[in-house]
Amino acid sequence: MTNTLILLRHGQSEWNEKNLFTGWVDVRLTERGRGEAAAAGKLLKESGLLPDVLFTSLLSRAIQTSNLALESADRMWIPVERSWRLNERHYGALQGLDKAETLQKYGEEQFMEWRRSYDTPPPALDDASEWSQANDERYAAIDGEAPRTECLSDVVARMVPYWEGNILPELNSGKTVLVTAHGNSLRALVKHLEGISDADIAALNIPTGMPLVYEINDDGTPTGAGRYLDPEAAAAGAAAVAAQGK
Amino acid sequence: MTNTLILLRHGQSEWNEKNLFTGWVDVRLTERGRGEAAAAGKLLKESGLLPDVLFTSLLSRAIQTSNLALESADRMWIPVERSWRLNERHYGALQGLDKAETLQKYGEEQFMEWRRSYDTPPPALDDASEWSQANDERYAAIDGEAPRTECLSDVVARMVPYWEGNILPELNSGKTVLVTAHGNSLRALVKHLEGISDADIAALNIPTGMPLVYEINDDGTPTGAGRYLDPEAAAAGAAAVAAQGK
Repeated sequence: MTNTLILLRHGQSEWNEKNLFTGWVDVRLTERGRGEAAAAGKLLKESGLLPDVLFTSLLSRAIQTSNLALESADRMWIPVERSWRLNERHYGALQGLDKAETLQKYGEEQFMEWRRSYDTPPPALDDASEWSQANDERYAAIDGEAPRTECLSDVVARMVPYWEGNILPELNSGKTVLVTAHGNSLRALVKHLEGISDADIAALNIPTGMPLVYEINDDGTPTGAGRYLDPEAAAAGAAAVAAQGK
Repeated sequence: MTNTLILLRHGQSEWNEKNLFTGWVDVRLTERGRGEAAAAGKLLKESGLLPDVLFTSLLSRAIQTSNLALESADRMWIPVERSWRLNERHYGALQGLDKAETLQKYGEEQFMEWRRSYDTPPPALDDASEWSQANDERYAAIDGEAPRTECLSDVVARMVPYWEGNILPELNSGKTVLVTAHGNSLRALVKHLEGISDADIAALNIPTGMPLVYEINDDGTPTGAGRYLDPEAAAAGAAAVAAQGK
């Protein structure tokens, strides 16, 4: 028996639009992002993919996306669980910086290393920075664990226990699960699910607002690669992510 | 030690606007209702009343209200628990009927008995009715318990165990709790909290979109009567509810 897992990256955020490194900075969706979220929910409904339970990060842009998607899918009433373990990668000292300026200042090699290196994090963000979450109440409960920077392998390390301990049990109880999260937390999950190598994950880009669907076996493995409900739009969206900063 | 409980009735719904008996029929907010919800969240933020945890019914209008209120209060990330026990009173065979036509057809005595009698429910709604929830998937888990009509004492009976078993423990752990629900499920809770008699509860009306705040002792009793954050607007709103159908 398999069960259905739906991954959804949040719609365009204010800082996606401004082309800034965001990470854990809690920006909202743009109007375009709100439209993407609503369209994703409509697509789920039309495809007969009705989530029974929702998981989100603690970041507003993912929560807004899930609210709007479930509103248009007419599934607002399903139970929801939120966790920092689904948050975007913490972008360290890059948070708040312009992607194009950063590319120009540090050069393409350093820029791509920060964006796509599997195991080298950017410099840590100073707790005194205006873009720090050191005093953000929502992370008070994970005081010792809250990162000041992360590479993708750090995200895998904090996300996989949550996948195994919280999300997979819901799938295994027969539920259709929606996970609304972020470019890099979803890349971490897709890497784990599809067994993508540390090198190959660099080339994987996840577009905003496009439902990505897996059938999951009891042991947590997928029956095959994920499929986008709207493959053409997803390919165009992924290419746009890959070109960021250029 | 006391902790803060905030009650919030959903903003104006499509059927509030049309003056129809709603009950468990899952209508959405109007634009005015969305504005009321956002304004309620703004008022919470300005008053420094920041919820740590949210409880909602399973009905879309309460969930939309909480989504919009927490968006404007900048507290979208708090944990949420939804339960049918916070649903509006099931209005039985009155669901879908026009309030003014019902008043005219049955007369004021019968009309007020249905609306405000403590222990006489309207006739049960037929499972074949287009306004029935007999086949609504969200109530599948409470199959045997799902009502076909309710009077206010039925709502008290299903709501109080949830108050005691789920909401009060969160207050007693030191949290500020937001409950986003409905005119009659909140009347049931206020009756229980303030020890209002079966007769006197008939005169209590709760306006849409107005935060009602209690300080709650460890034993579940309030330190005093609830206070509306905006008393003048609340009084006008309550008068409008009392005049419905007239």
